[in-house]
Amino acid sequence: MLNLKYVDNLIPVIVQDAGSRAILMMAYANEEAVRLTKETGFAHYYSRSRKKLWKKGEESGHFQKVVKILTDCDEDCLIYEVEQTGAACHTGYMSCFYRTLDGEIVGTKVFDPEKVYKKPGH
Amino acid sequence: MLNLKYVDNLIPVIVQDAGSRAILMMAYANEEAVRLTKETGFAHYYSRSRKKLWKKGEESGHFQKVVKILTDCDEDCLIYEVEQTGAACHTGYMSCFYRTLDGEIVGTKVFDPEKVYKKPGH
Repeated sequence: MLNLKYVDNLIPVIVQDAGSRAILMMAYANEEAVRLTKETGFAHYYSRSRKKLWKKGEESGHFQKVVKILTDCDEDCLIYEVEQTGAACHTGYMSCFYRTLDGEIVGTKVFDPEKVYKKPGH
Repeated sequence: MLNLKYVDNLIPVIVQDAGSRAILMMAYANEEAVRLTKETGFAHYYSRSRKKLWKKGEESGHFQKVVKILTDCDEDCLIYEVEQTGAACHTGYMSCFYRTLDGEIVGTKVFDPEKVYKKPGH
């Protein structure tokens, strides 16, 4: 087991689709999130804005089954290779990286976020 | 042009091989590095340890021709899609992400770093 370097208790995680090889999102994990990801086989992260651990898909149902975890030469960044249920982005696009710097949309919309996140009584 | 969010003047950049779709490395850019990347078509970054702008390949010759720049839903992370000369990692591996969490090597070694970085009189 390598010695991962956490900065302010966090390590950046790049999430890649194991099939298409598309980069789906980037998020952060703390030690507990990495441990839970390894133990459960599903992607966990730490939300800097909400200051809490989260399991991807816990609200949307769009879970990420993690098939491989890689780290880089400096051991300060991770890749989760995943099988994505639904889509990765809360906007409904398959990947969070659906735009160029000029704002041109190059991604594919997969679901309607109004329907996924705003359930009756939710 | 979207309004990128820099934290401490930096934005994380994921570097993806335009051909193989492999994730090659992760680095940081400041505004000037992003501008130079757009203007020159070659990947520029900001080194947090050396506290300076750098052009990938300036020492090794392993330049990255940038064919596309994407940003994510939050506009706080970039992807440089690149055509990589040589290899991305200073260790000689094609990608910096050549190991699993257990230290198992899954990547491909492309060059001998002793030969590339330690030139006579250098």
